[in-house]
Amino acid sequence: MPTETPGHRSDQRIAEVTITPVAFRDLPLLNTVGVHEPYAIRAIVEVRTDEGLTGLGETYADTAHLARLRRAAEEITGTGVWDLNELARRVRASLAGDTGTGGHGMAGMVTNSSTADAVLSPFEVACLDVQGQATGLPVSALLGGAVRDRVEYSAYLFYKWAAHPGQEPDAWGAALDPDGIVAQARQMIGAYGFSAIKLKGGVFPPEEEIEAIRALRRAFPDHPLRIDPNGAWTVETSIRVGQELDGVLEYLEDPTAGMAGMAEVAKKVPMPLATNMCVVGFADIEPAVKRDAVGVVLSDHHFWGGLTRSRLLAGICETFGLGMSMHSNSHLGISLAAMTHLAAASPSLTYACDTHWPWKDPGEDVIVDGALTFSEGALAVPAGPGLGVTLDRDRLARLHEQYVRCGLRDRDDTGYMRRIDPSYELKQPRW
Amino acid sequence: MPTETPGHRSDQRIAEVTITPVAFRDLPLLNTVGVHEPYAIRAIVEVRTDEGLTGLGETYADTAHLARLRRAAEEITGTGVWDLNELARRVRASLAGDTGTGGHGMAGMVTNSSTADAVLSPFEVACLDVQGQATGLPVSALLGGAVRDRVEYSAYLFYKWAAHPGQEPDAWGAALDPDGIVAQARQMIGAYGFSAIKLKGGVFPPEEEIEAIRALRRAFPDHPLRIDPNGAWTVETSIRVGQELDGVLEYLEDPTAGMAGMAEVAKKVPMPLATNMCVVGFADIEPAVKRDAVGVVLSDHHFWGGLTRSRLLAGICETFGLGMSMHSNSHLGISLAAMTHLAAASPSLTYACDTHWPWKDPGEDVIVDGALTFSEGALAVPAGPGLGVTLDRDRLARLHEQYVRCGLRDRDDTGYMRRIDPSYELKQPRW
Ligand SMILES: [Mg+2]
Ligand SMILES: [Mg+2]
Repeated sequence: MPTETPGHRSDQRIAEVTITPVAFRDLPLLNTVGVHEPYAIRAIVEVRTDEGLTGLGETYADTAHLARLRRAAEEITGTGVWDLNELARRVRASLAGDTGTGGHGMAGMVTNSSTADAVLSPFEVACLDVQGQATGLPVSALLGGAVRDRVEYSAYLFYKWAAHPGQEPDAWGAALDPDGIVAQARQMIGAYGFSAIKLKGGVFPPEEEIEAIRALRRAFPDHPLRIDPNGAWTVETSIRVGQELDGVLEYLEDPTAGMAGMAEVAKKVPMPLATNMCVVGFADIEPAVKRDAVGVVLSDHHFWGGLTRSRLLAGICETFGLGMSMHSNSHLGISLAAMTHLAAASPSLTYACDTHWPWKDPGEDVIVDGALTFSEGALAVPAGPGLGVTLDRDRLARLHEQYVRCGLRDRDDTGYMRRIDPSYELKQPRW
Repeated sequence: MPTETPGHRSDQRIAEVTITPVAFRDLPLLNTVGVHEPYAIRAIVEVRTDEGLTGLGETYADTAHLARLRRAAEEITGTGVWDLNELARRVRASLAGDTGTGGHGMAGMVTNSSTADAVLSPFEVACLDVQGQATGLPVSALLGGAVRDRVEYSAYLFYKWAAHPGQEPDAWGAALDPDGIVAQARQMIGAYGFSAIKLKGGVFPPEEEIEAIRALRRAFPDHPLRIDPNGAWTVETSIRVGQELDGVLEYLEDPTAGMAGMAEVAKKVPMPLATNMCVVGFADIEPAVKRDAVGVVLSDHHFWGGLTRSRLLAGICETFGLGMSMHSNSHLGISLAAMTHLAAASPSLTYACDTHWPWKDPGEDVIVDGALTFSEGALAVPAGPGLGVTLDRDRLARLHEQYVRCGLRDRDDTGYMRRIDPSYELKQPRW
């Protein structure tokens, strides 16, 4: 539990790791591979040291990933919390011979990220949390120092149903056309004050989504706008949409799948292409740079190997003139704190970051309330030691029970959609 | 002065900076721009915090660089020692409007490195030294953890005269032909145990230097060999030498000047090209990668912005499949300690690092003896807090007096050579 403990030995070692899968309610958010299930699942990682400090991490909880986390947890016992090189080495060693393909936690939209980096991430974050507690420093300071004291997030809009089948309508209602999207934006921006807007696209034909973007532009003339169809479009469609939205979008996110297609689109559209599907690991950077395939990389410490490796990514982007933004999946407060520290310490991360936070039931989390409060679309960077969030064991137990009860073990937006609409087809590209 | 001081507040701030230029005796080492002068000059940086800790840094002392260090020193007062982003920002701010060209400290061989990164470096190293003292951690731990407990260095051979004109012969004697170079290698490897050999070339016609390398190969059949003519050769000569030394060199360092020439040579020679002249700053990386101009980058924290930015360079090299080695200028013990921590914490830095250490009079330094002792060609990574070296104020005062007395204010290998041999001409390429 993060508390200021000056005088603790800095070179403490990992004594025990606990991994707790949890489930929290999620809303029927639509995307190009289906629809969010009634629960999102996450794994909460606690790293306890021989000095009695506990650091926190949060990651995916799909079955294959959980199994890998557990193998890694055994391997890393005894590692010093500052020895991140050794931590990474041991995580890689724990994966030797692992040829499984599942567990990427992103409903099949991103499957080519580095398994080793995804497994490393929550342990690295937890070690940084301990480093911060041991030194009295916030994680942002350990990452080179906060260059901003508040981190801007974007209004992350989704097409959605009014409710999961068989449930009462949720507080957001349906959004299935431009008016619905604008109403959702008004509600979200009214509540959070976000100053940038992202629309998750790839759900309806591009013409309808273009109309939604135009409606957002009329309703919010000064908010930077983005659309992300998750690779649902052909190269031709991507170029057409990009050209039509000239002057309207700050960036166009993953219009088409694959690096070759992105490179082709990049040449023909006026705005930068952003990605969290085409450049998802260090191995993707060289080909992307050599082809000029993307202009903005959406960092995500959950699959880029944690916070220090995400800082490396930020340094690479600066070096190669690439912009930086931040990707999000459904997440809880530990991840939000980590994202905020990372963004604060990354000078070149100048775009408002994505977050699914508004879609989470405010009553559900694993941390003590109050550490992370949005004001004018931004979060103050936690100034206390470490991540600056405190685990609430009752809440953790409750969300773990919910995980056990709900039976959901692998994120499957497509399977859920098919159970509701058996005619639903997975297609990429779709248009 | 580095001493273990647990309980110190971690978030201490820079209260006072002292910059002391020093001179230490140097030997008549030949290179393609002239010959080392009787003294090498360095600046010793002390960063004192509001908590009373002092961190150490070491850098060039050329006039223009000293002036920049002093301006930056005023600007950084008040910065937190963990806030390296802010430190870099303030150093950049201190350079606003500075259009001077001098002060690169490398006798004109490298002039295109980043001035801001060169000025930042000693302050960043000093802040890391304080961080380590405040936490009880060695700098290597703050850089991600030592992946090796000893760092290998190479035998850095130079053609040289027996003595500076008018002085008694030094302990190394002359080395002006293959036999002289082999004798020098035997003496140096006998004393230090180095397991790799680098020859500073560009002094004699390539045929003679090829013969020296072949003589070294015969005398040391198992030592990896390198030659570095500092861009003295044309593209054609570089290709010819590279092809002749196929199977003999582990890498060929800066055979020709300029990225275009290096890229051409790289295509035609069998060994990797290494560089500390063509890729010397973050701005050089993208063009080098896009042209496949180099295979190995010689890092040097003195011009790459310090240790954390050198770790970024290491991460970039890993990401782009480039090898890493380490460059050296004439230096004292603070630099050697910093180099050792950096190399220890850089997994991909697998080549033996360069150092001028054997050329330094063992009686001259600014640190207390004993922290850095070579054994079998390697240095044990200092395990104490911070850099692990302690400033000796008497020695500092003595070398500062020597700086005042010797009158040398800017490194000028060419001017010194011309005073000795008025017919000496600076030429690039020379052959
Ligand atoms: Mg995306
Ligand atoms: Mg060199």
